[in-house]
This record gives sequence, structure tokens and C-alpha cells, in this order.
Amino acid sequence: MTRQVVFSPSGRRGSFAQGTTVLDAARALGVDLDSVCGGRGICGRCQVMIGSRPGIEARPDRLSEPGPTETDYQARRPLAPGHRLGCAAEIVEDVVIDVPPESQVHRQVVRKRAGVSALPVDPVVRLHYVDVAEPDLASPTGDLERLLAALEKEWGLEGLLVDPPVLSGLQSALRQGDWTVTAAVRHQRDLVGIWPGFRDVALGVAFDVGSTTIAGHLCDLTSGEVLATSGMMNPQIGFGEDLMSRVSYVMMNDDGAERLTGVVRGALDGLIGELAAEAGVAREDILELSLVGNPIMHHLALGLDPRELGTAPFALVTTSALDTRARDLGMRAHPGATVYSLPSIAGHVGADACGVVLSEGPHRGAALQLLVDVGTNAELVLGNRERLLAASSPTGPAFEGAQISSGQRAAPGAIERVRVDRSTLEPRFSVIGQEGWSNDVGFDFGAVTGICGSGIIEAIAELFLAGVIDGDGVIRDPAGGSPWVVPSERTFSYVLSVEPRVEITQNDVRAVQLAKAALHAGARLLMDHYGVEHVDEIRLAGAFGSHIDPRYAMVLGMIPDCDLEHVSAAGNAAGVGAMMALLSAEARNEIEDVAGRIEKVETAIEPRFQEHFVAALAIPHKTEPYPELSKVVDMPARVETGQRRRRRG
Amino acid sequence: MTRQVVFSPSGRRGSFAQGTTVLDAARALGVDLDSVCGGRGICGRCQVMIGSRPGIEARPDRLSEPGPTETDYQARRPLAPGHRLGCAAEIVEDVVIDVPPESQVHRQVVRKRAGVSALPVDPVVRLHYVDVAEPDLASPTGDLERLLAALEKEWGLEGLLVDPPVLSGLQSALRQGDWTVTAAVRHQRDLVGIWPGFRDVALGVAFDVGSTTIAGHLCDLTSGEVLATSGMMNPQIGFGEDLMSRVSYVMMNDDGAERLTGVVRGALDGLIGELAAEAGVAREDILELSLVGNPIMHHLALGLDPRELGTAPFALVTTSALDTRARDLGMRAHPGATVYSLPSIAGHVGADACGVVLSEGPHRGAALQLLVDVGTNAELVLGNRERLLAASSPTGPAFEGAQISSGQRAAPGAIERVRVDRSTLEPRFSVIGQEGWSNDVGFDFGAVTGICGSGIIEAIAELFLAGVIDGDGVIRDPAGGSPWVVPSERTFSYVLSVEPRVEITQNDVRAVQLAKAALHAGARLLMDHYGVEHVDEIRLAGAFGSHIDPRYAMVLGMIPDCDLEHVSAAGNAAGVGAMMALLSAEARNEIEDVAGRIEKVETAIEPRFQEHFVAALAIPHKTEPYPELSKVVDMPARVETGQRRRRRG
Repeated sequence: MTRQVVFSPSGRRGSFAQGTTVLDAARALGVDLDSVCGGRGICGRCQVMIGSRPGIEARPDRLSEPGPTETDYQARRPLAPGHRLGCAAEIVEDVVIDVPPESQVHRQVVRKRAGVSALPVDPVVRLHYVDVAEPDLASPTGDLERLLAALEKEWGLEGLLVDPPVLSGLQSALRQGDWTVTAAVRHQRDLVGIWPGFRDVALGVAFDVGSTTIAGHLCDLTSGEVLATSGMMNPQIGFGEDLMSRVSYVMMNDDGAERLTGVVRGALDGLIGELAAEAGVAREDILELSLVGNPIMHHLALGLDPRELGTAPFALVTTSALDTRARDLGMRAHPGATVYSLPSIAGHVGADACGVVLSEGPHRGAALQLLVDVGTNAELVLGNRERLLAASSPTGPAFEGAQISSGQRAAPGAIERVRVDRSTLEPRFSVIGQEGWSNDVGFDFGAVTGICGSGIIEAIAELFLAGVIDGDGVIRDPAGGSPWVVPSERTFSYVLSVEPRVEITQNDVRAVQLAKAALHAGARLLMDHYGVEHVDEIRLAGAFGSHIDPRYAMVLGMIPDCDLEHVSAAGNAAGVGAMMALLSAEARNEIEDVAGRIEKVETAIEPRFQEHFVAALAIPHKTEPYPELSKVVDMPARVETGQRRRRRG
Repeated sequence: MTRQVVFSPSGRRGSFAQGTTVLDAARALGVDLDSVCGGRGICGRCQVMIGSRPGIEARPDRLSEPGPTETDYQARRPLAPGHRLGCAAEIVEDVVIDVPPESQVHRQVVRKRAGVSALPVDPVVRLHYVDVAEPDLASPTGDLERLLAALEKEWGLEGLLVDPPVLSGLQSALRQGDWTVTAAVRHQRDLVGIWPGFRDVALGVAFDVGSTTIAGHLCDLTSGEVLATSGMMNPQIGFGEDLMSRVSYVMMNDDGAERLTGVVRGALDGLIGELAAEAGVAREDILELSLVGNPIMHHLALGLDPRELGTAPFALVTTSALDTRARDLGMRAHPGATVYSLPSIAGHVGADACGVVLSEGPHRGAALQLLVDVGTNAELVLGNRERLLAASSPTGPAFEGAQISSGQRAAPGAIERVRVDRSTLEPRFSVIGQEGWSNDVGFDFGAVTGICGSGIIEAIAELFLAGVIDGDGVIRDPAGGSPWVVPSERTFSYVLSVEPRVEITQNDVRAVQLAKAALHAGARLLMDHYGVEHVDEIRLAGAFGSHIDPRYAMVLGMIPDCDLEHVSAAGNAAGVGAMMALLSAEARNEIEDVAGRIEKVETAIEPRFQEHFVAALAIPHKTEPYPELSKVVDMPARVETGQRRRRRG
């Protein structure tokens, strides 16, 4: 007697003998139904529900009554009402089987913490429980050979390659597990881990290696759940605040690359320890890692000398995604753990940009997206599903607070928000690590240490809106006699704070003008190459992108014209990209494919870049006002400022 | 105008346009003609000569006149008369091209030092010289990607995999070599090394890891030449003289396996340093290594716990050949170097036995060979091209001098040769490290430290032939009153040396009887399984096999009947096997294939083994005399002894 079985949502269907288990039917039809224990009623991954369609209503007796396997399972773990174990439930009548997302190997996981709606989860490392034949004096075979035979027979995994250091735990695992083990297999090709008996834990870590901070996310490779997130300062800061000073260090010191590699690897290894401790798991539970970073961080973490990235033509060692053993990078995780580093595009558009692309997905839609990731260089990607362009703009470190008279990194004590009274020109500001504004009662001026990138941008934009800075970037005292505008060298400085002294100097304004003009010109150049005058959406990635207020970016003319509501922070997009690559083989294929298709536009050799750059030096970059800006920033509208500038110029 | 070209010895032929180079013609026809530089006249590997055949006599003008490439080459290196560079010489007339063996990629190298006549040389690692495109700002690609493109274009190497740590030297190599590099490619699949410019050095080390000594051979991977050979004591001896005591150490100490692994790896790493120093090369020139050893040494060197090998069913972690990164084994060589460990057969028949099989090649001929490798266990292989059987016999450590009253390892001071005067029963002996015999004038008795395995065997055989030991192994004083036969416990001891005292006790005889009976019974069991009563050839492998005199082995009945002239020492056959595997991809395929076909016969579960064992305890194992033995050993012939025994019994 055969029965008709239809699986949902796949729609796959077939006829099976009465008594066939749902899991066997699913496997025969190639339906995506998960299992770690191989149908032994242990793992509970193959849970299904009885569904319905016209002519086949949902009735419990379409499957066999729950038997001892399911009863035993329920004694150990709850089984939701209506849920059945696919490996135990047998087909009795024609039936529709609903496979819920959590029972699929390839699933979409809805996330909240990571700032994206859904991540595909189909990890490259999967666990497989097997019974292994015992050794036999009469016909000797190695324990490995019997394990491989079991993996082939039970899971169809043929010709697996074995990483020799993984073998050291094989014999004890087989004996401790009484000839059952769980094997971790990577890409259905490499045997990378072995544990006694049944095991259901496979963890991974996604690293985002920034010049300033390093972040790590510990994830469950199966569920996609983030178990812990931790960050730390990049200890390379001791060798140079910004990227270029670290490359200089390498150039000046024979062992420079080695030392920088050593400290960043130490940090990554330390972060693994912190993440494991925070989540209450062992380092050895971590089977897979992923890594993004700008080209210099990427190279140093992988032990590659970044020297060539310091001078034209900025040749990368490789643009390819790499699989490197964690142990070869000095990271203590499972002995068979692999670090997947995302591909890069060019000398200044690295794995971090690929992480942003993977996370933001301009290639997945029709809208023309501009992705901006600001660091020492701004990495820019423009495009949609038709075409993708990338460029790097030499913004210099001004946006990171470097080369600014009172500048500093975005850290506690740094001024990050600035307002200037349009009439009195009096400033107020807020600092990182302290609630409220500087004109609030009890504000602790003693904690102020300097001004960070977002503070500088707000200060200059506000001063421009207040008429203290004109369109050419010259600081003036518009009404005369303002206590906050003080003579300094040939022009003026603006005093944000008296004690401690924090000023905006003419040089500071120049540095920001240069930086924002470079950023704007890079974006314009990409638009020229794409042949558009307008982009549909601008996403500001990274810490800087999260801190700056898009309105002030608009006032300064940092970014091209775009409806303000379509300008937004993308959060830690590079890190999210690393996480996506960690959790999904498909995501890796996707970014490797996309990275190969991104056209790099080189700002250094494009005459138009220079033209755009010069045009973008003024504040803002063009004379027409942004009507929408007058709505969102306090006042006065910049048309007035423009008039004043013209009056005075 | 096309010309006919015939290559010799391959016989391949084809028509080519006049002006085609010999190398291009060879490549088009798939002729095995070597080249590292890719036809640039640098490496000199593609040398050919003009040959002849009926109708095409050898005339120099059948190829173009030597041009600047060959003149330049000759200015750097000699070119033998009649030799032409295949990459420069162009086809002018119909021509026969002789490819000498040294210009073939797959060659047979005739060896003297290693004790075999010819080794196939077709190394798994090959060098390829390429021109790499320079980076271009306008279309950025990684240096690696351009290198891979060059390797694909010039050498047809597609889809190479890259070991990430090898990348660290890529950029400097490309720039130092002015965009030419030599790449090492393993198995035409893995990029494992990169050097600036042209390079022609690729070295390898073959390791034979014995319980007592470790030997290493440094070879040129291209020519097969042995550049240096070095040996050392296995420092694991500090943890136990014989194998079983080291396994016990592992069982008794939690970190035992780790410590034993640490010391053997340290020794191997030290040996690499010694070999490199002796040959005047750098460790980093070593690209490939091979390793044989008994199962316990093999496991410990690879970091695998040998515990299971100490108890039935003696399960190996794996019987497969493994490729392990040298760096993962703590061996400092080239960062991309790999250690190839030969396959194993069973718990007591390991990679060393596979090395012996590869070297001796019973599977290549029709003659029925018995290979005997004596250690703590005797590894036995019997067979020919039809069928191969293997067994391990529990000889115990008596043959290694252990469990013998005055026993010791074969080391300076050990008695290794013994003669007993048939009338006076007076002994004479020679010791390792001293010339001459103990009855020579000036013999230094003070240097005598004990007796080693070969000494014990000769002593007992000589005493048997002298009538001091009877066929049951009982020590007697045949004539009475001999000063060398002294009462001891219930029987007698034979005094070999008075000061220092070295005796052969009744227990010593018993220990050797047990050992030789086990060895004989194992061989007999294999013969039963094969269904033969006689073997064509017996090869005694290893240090012990080289030291014992086959005649005495026959007197004692250690080995089955065989014409004495067909019993011989195989020398360091396991080490030669390791060297063959080091130098030849084909040899690896061969031994992996053969190892999978060898049938293991387990002595422990075969009742016939016990029967053979009991039957083999007597000296010699059967009552019929060996007529040929009476010719070669002094006298009296053993039939007399047999009569005496019967008389007295």
C-alpha cells in the first residue's frame, strides 16, 4: 500500500509505502529536513507538523501514533503540541507534512540584535552522529577508516579529507562514546572534529578587525543565535593611531609586520576567550570563524606584510577569500577550526567593504545604493543588481579625530554632539560617557578630553549654519565681539570649551574640508562611472556612520544629494557581513561571486576626481539650498548663510 | 613546411612546422621532457640529443644552429657535446630526438648508497618558473591571482589551492625577482612555495623512526641524489628501552603520550638541522618529507596516542597514508612543507613494514618472498605479485638484548659475534666498536659491556653446535669439568667472559627459544595461509637483519627452510622505502594500493600459531639436518648433536 506525501513549503511530493518514516520520505525526495542523529530520535531536529491542502485535511491519524522514540524524547526535551519527530512518525494515510523553518538545514533566521531582518543560516560545518563498527582482530582496519565508512553509509559523505591533528582525539572519542561519535564535517568534504556520543553544539565566531576596535560575535552555527558579543581596542594602536602610521611602523622596522601581527592575533585569541567565558562555553566548541577588516588589518591578521598597501599601486597579496586554520593564526579554538576571511576588492577596498556589501546587499535589489564606510580612507560602493562600483577616497584621518587640534578618537571624554546658538554663538555640547549637555546643571567639564570625528563635523556644520564659518570655510566673527570667536594666527578660532580648552581652528576646518571633499568627490566619481546624477539610498556604515547625524553630513556636503529620509546609518554592517559569512555557505558563495564582479574605480588616476574634489571643498558643495535641511536643522536656513557669504565675499 | 619528429625512448611522433622548438613539440606530443624555467634557456633541464633511426641518420643540421640562448647557457653551465637545449633548438629537418633519463620528469635513478639498484624519481613537489604580470592601479588584482593566472597560462596548472602561510613571502618574492618567481606546486594541486626569480633547489627528507634509532636521509627531490644521511638514538629510550615499556609509560602517565611525542618530534626537528648543516643547505630548502616507523613510533610522531596499540584488538587510529604539515608536527622546514607518512597494515604491521614492502617489492615479482623485520615484534610479509600476507609475531624484546641476563642494545661494547670451540668449548667473541676477536692479543676486555641480540643468537647456535645446549635448549656440560660451563640454579650457565662477567644462562636460552619459536611460527602460519611449504627467498630487514648471520638463524630455526643462498639481509629496507616514497608520486600510489591489498593474518587468534610455536621451540625446529649448514658452520654437524641428545635424554 503506497501513500501520497506532500512536503510544505517545498511542494515536493512522492508515493511511499505505508510505514515509511517522514524523515526517510524527506530524504528520498531531497526535502530540506534537518537531522544530526541520523534518525535515532535523539536530536529532535527533524520535527514536523501535519499540514493540509484541498482534499487532504490535517488529521493526526495520517501519521502513526507517537511510539516509544517520541515518548523517550519528550521525557528529555519538550515537544510542542502538534510537533512530531520526522524520524519516528510513520506515514499511515496520504498526508501533507509541514517542515517548520527551524527544522530546515537551510533556514532564514530573524534577528534583532544584529540590526538586520533575516540571515540565511546554512553553516559550512555540520554535525553527524554515527555508529562506528568496532575493531576486529581478524580483519584489522583503522578506527578512522571505520568512521569514514560509517559517515559514508549513514550520511552519504564520500571521500572525506582528514585534517591530521583532528585524529588525536579519535580513539578516545570512539571508546568513550561506546562506538558512537558525532563528527563535524566542513563543506561536506573535510572531517574537522570528533566527539564521543551525541553532540549538538557547534559554535562560531565572527571577527570585525578595525584599526581602532576589534569586535567578535560568538554564534550558534545551527540556530544562528548570537550567544555573546565583545569588543576591545585594537592593541596595534600602541604602534600608531591610524592605519598609515602602522604601515610606516612596518616600513621602518624589520620585525614590524611580525610584531603587529603578533599583537592583533593575541587580541583575537583573547577575544575568543572572553566570548567563550561570557557565554559559558569552551574555546574548543568553536569550530568556525570568519574575519573582515580593511586590507591592512586583514593582511596583518593573516600574517601578510602590509607594506605594499602603503604605496601605489597598492597591491594586495590576494583578493580571494581564504580558509586558514585557526591554529596557524595562533587562535586557540577547536584544533580543526578554520578562519574564513572574506574576499577583498582592491588595495583600499577590503574584506570589510565586502562585509558591508554582503550585509547591505545592493546587488540584491534594483535601488541604487551608495554605501559609505569612513575610516582613514572612505570605502565607497555604489550600485544595484545591475552593476556595482567601488572606490576608496583618501579622506585622511580627520574624521577619526586625528590631525585636528583638539581631536581624539571616539572614546569617553570626547565631544560628540555640538550645537551653536544662532544668535549668541554660544556653544553647547555633549561628550561620550556623560549624560546631558554642557549647559545642563552639574555637567562635568573636567571629564572633557577632546573632540571626536562626529563632534568636529557637527561643530563645523553648526558654525556654518550660524554664519561663523563661510562657504569657503573661513572662520569669522559675523557680528563682531563674540567671546567664542577669538583671533588666532591670521583668522579666528572658535572656542568650544574654555577649561579644558577645546577650539575649532582654521586648520581644523581645512582638514575637515579636505576630508569631506575627498569623500564627496569619490562618491561623485562613482556616480559618473555609473552614469547617474542621483542615488536612491545612502547607507553610512561603521562606527563613524553610526555616530554622525546624516543632516550634518548633508550640511557639510560630505555625501551626494539624496532624500534625507533615504540616508541612514547601517550600523556595524561589516561585522554583520562577517556574521552572515560565518553562518552561511551560500552567503560565502554570494560575496565571493559579487566581489569578483565589483568594478574598482581608482580615484588616484581619474582626472575627474580632482575636479570633483576642488568643487566639493566649499561648504556645502553646491550653492542651491537643501529645502529639506531647513526643516530638520534648527536655523537659520542655509540660504541666509549663503546670502550673507555672498554679501560679505 | 612541416617536418617529422620522432622522440626516443617514448616513440611518440608528429609533424611540426619548421622552426618549432623541440620543447614545444615534446609538449604537444605529451613527451616526458622536463623544464623548470618554462623554455627560457635558464634551467637546462630540457637537454636532448639528436638520435637516429633507419632513414633518419643523426646529423647536427637537423636542428637549428645553437643561438644566443644556448651560448648564454653555456657561459653559465657546461653543456655536454651533442647536447642541445630543447627549448632553444628548432626543428629544421625530419629528426629523431633522444631524451636522456636526466631530462625526463619521471626517471629511474641508479643508486649505490641506498642499497637498491634503481629508484623511480617523480617527486610530488615540482618547481615552475613564471613571469607574473605587474599590479595595475586601473584594474586591481591580488598578487596571488596574477601568479595563479601565470601558472595556469604557462604550465596548465588550474585551480591551484593555496596554503595561506605560504602567502607571507609572496609579495617580496615577486618584487625581488622583478616579477619572475619560481613556484613549488605539490601534486599539481597545491601551491606550497614561492621564491624570487629562477630557482632549481627542491630538497626532501626521508625519516625512518625506529624504537632505538632514528635515521634521516636528505635528498635532492629532482635528481634523487642523497645529499646527507644522519642518525641518532631515539630519545624516547629515556622513557623505556623497548616499545611496550613506552606504551606502559603512556598508560601510567596522563601526559605520557604528549611527552613522548614531544621528544621524538624534537629529535626529528634536530635531525633536519643536522642534515641541512651536513649538506650545507637551509632547512627552508626542504619542501617534502616522508616518514616510516612501527605503529607506535608512527602514532607518537604524528601526535596520536598509542595506548590502543598496547592491548587487543590493537586498533590503529588510521591505516591510511597521511599528509601532515611539517609545521603541525613541530618540524622546522619550508613553511609549506608536508610530511607524508606511509600507510600501515595493522596494529603491529606498520608504515615500516610498508616501507620494507615498497623497497623489496614482493608484489612486483613471481618469486615467493618472505620479508622479516625483527624488533620487539617481528613484522612478517609473505607473498608475490599474486597475493600478499602479513603477520606480526610476538617475539618479545629478547632479540633486542632485553630480558637477557647480560643483554643490551646493539651499541659499542656489546658482544655481537661468538664462536665456541667444538672441542675445548672455549669461547671467543667480538664486540661492537672494537676490531678483532677476544682471543687476539691486546683485546680490551674492559670495553665489554654486555651482549646484544646477534651475539645471543650466535652464542646459543654455537653452543648448540658444540653440544653444550641440546635440542630442548637445556645447557649441559657434555664432557664434564669444562671451566666455561658452570652450575647455576638447577642447570648450568655458560661463561662467555669472566671479567666483566657475561654469561649465557638457562633463562637466556629459554627467552631466545620463545622469541625464535614465535618468529618461526609466524612465518609458518603465513605459509599455511598461502598454502606453501617452501619460500623462494627470505629477506631479513632492519638493523637486526643486517647483524645476524643467516646461517645461525638457520641453525636456531628462526626462519623457515630456504636455500641458504636465498636468505640475505635487506639492509635498511624501511628507510629505503621511505626514500622511495619521498622521491616518487608513483611509489606512493603503489604502496597505498599494495597496503590495501595485504591480508593480515592475526597470530593471536589462530590455533595453528600455537601449534607451530610449540613445534618450533626445539633447536632447531625439525630433526632433519641442514646438509648445507654442515658445510658453512665449523663443526660438528648437528646430526651428531642430535644423536647425543637422544642418547642422553
